[in-house]
Amino acid sequence: MSHERFDECIQACNDCAIACEHCASACLGEGHATAMAACIRLDRDCADLCRWAATLMARGSSYATALCAVCAEVCEACAAECARHDAAHCQQCAVACRQCAEACRRMAA
Amino acid sequence: MSHERFDECIQACNDCAIACEHCASACLGEGHATAMAACIRLDRDCADLCRWAATLMARGSSYATALCAVCAEVCEACAAECARHDAAHCQQCAVACRQCAEACRRMAA
Amino acid sequence: MSHERFDECIQACNDCAIACEHCASACLGEGHATAMAACIRLDRDCADLCRWAATLMARGSSYATALCAVCAEVCEACAAECARHDAAHCQQCAVACRQCAEACRRMAA
Amino acid sequence: MSHERFDECIQACNDCAIACEHCASACLGEGHATAMAACIRLDRDCADLCRWAATLMARGSSYATALCAVCAEVCEACAAECARHDAAHCQQCAVACRQCAEACRRMAA
Repeated sequence: MSHERFDECIQACNDCAIACEHCASACLGEGHATAMAACIRLDRDCADLCRWAATLMARGSSYATALCAVCAEVCEACAAECARHDAAHCQQCAVACRQCAEACRRMAA
Repeated sequence: MSHERFDECIQACNDCAIACEHCASACLGEGHATAMAACIRLDRDCADLCRWAATLMARGSSYATALCAVCAEVCEACAAECARHDAAHCQQCAVACRQCAEACRRMAA
Repeated sequence: MSHERFDECIQACNDCAIACEHCASACLGEGHATAMAACIRLDRDCADLCRWAATLMARGSSYATALCAVCAEVCEACAAECARHDAAHCQQCAVACRQCAEACRRMAA
Repeated sequence: MSHERFDECIQACNDCAIACEHCASACLGEGHATAMAACIRLDRDCADLCRWAATLMARGSSYATALCAVCAEVCEACAAECARHDAAHCQQCAVACRQCAEACRRMAA
């Protein structure tokens, strides 16, 4: 595992966690959370998985790639859901999720 | 800090985290998340603070009581919000939050 | 997934996280951390994975069983390492890890 | 709270968490963990507090500044301990901790 790919994936995970937390808070605060329930739910799982994968990579854990594999799955689901909504925070979250999914897939491979 | 009070507070925090996660998921899944947005938002913070306080107590960290003080605050806010709603998961969460707030206040004192 | 098995696995994960945090702190504080480095390292990963699996189970996440599968792996590794040491905190941690591994294996099945 | 200072503090927290995880793993893996026990212990708390503060800031939580205040304290303690050791990972961790402490102090003010 090259150090360069490792750092890139940690950064992608941290960026995605921030985007997901922000998207969930915005979805909750704009007066139509019922319509955004699936998005909020996925944001919540995705933010956590991204943070956890980044944590294990940063410490060089033997279990980092196993977490990256799960993280890639939830990132792909979250990207697909967010992409369906027009709000800027959803579109930005979809981009961050797709980049993180790709970085995690490379780590898990 | 007596071992007994320590264990009791960890247990109260873990129980409260479970109740908050369950309450947030139920609030998101019952078709009226817009009306429950404040509850979901507090559940999210409260679940995290409870887990983090429990983590620092379990490891005997010097920062455990500082986290317990913040945890008590969010537990009280979450209890007040959940108590306003009739759903069983909200009422049960309010009880768990109040018990955790009391246990954390004792630790932080 | 029956509610009973679900609650039991959350409890096993929380108990194991507490045992691992305590074991790591004790290993660090008893003056022979160099000999216990592998134990401390596994305790650290195991505590985190247990907390994360419990979190996803409590919220009814679609990714809970994937985390339980990873959690079972690290619990088995941590149990094997802890069982090699005579200290009470290591022996207790080994028991908690084995119980958690079994509960997580059932969830992941 | 300006958006700019907010983003800067999240970044400082994430950078510090990475530095602390790496420092702890290196301290555990270099054959003299007993001498580094205080450093490992502080790295563990500091990494967690940094991640937690970043999480609450990213979601715009009402409790973010309270966590930043605790995070600043542990960052200062971790910086002081790491600065005492010559290893590159300790020196780099001390720098990351000092920067994070300053950013968190500004947020908590």
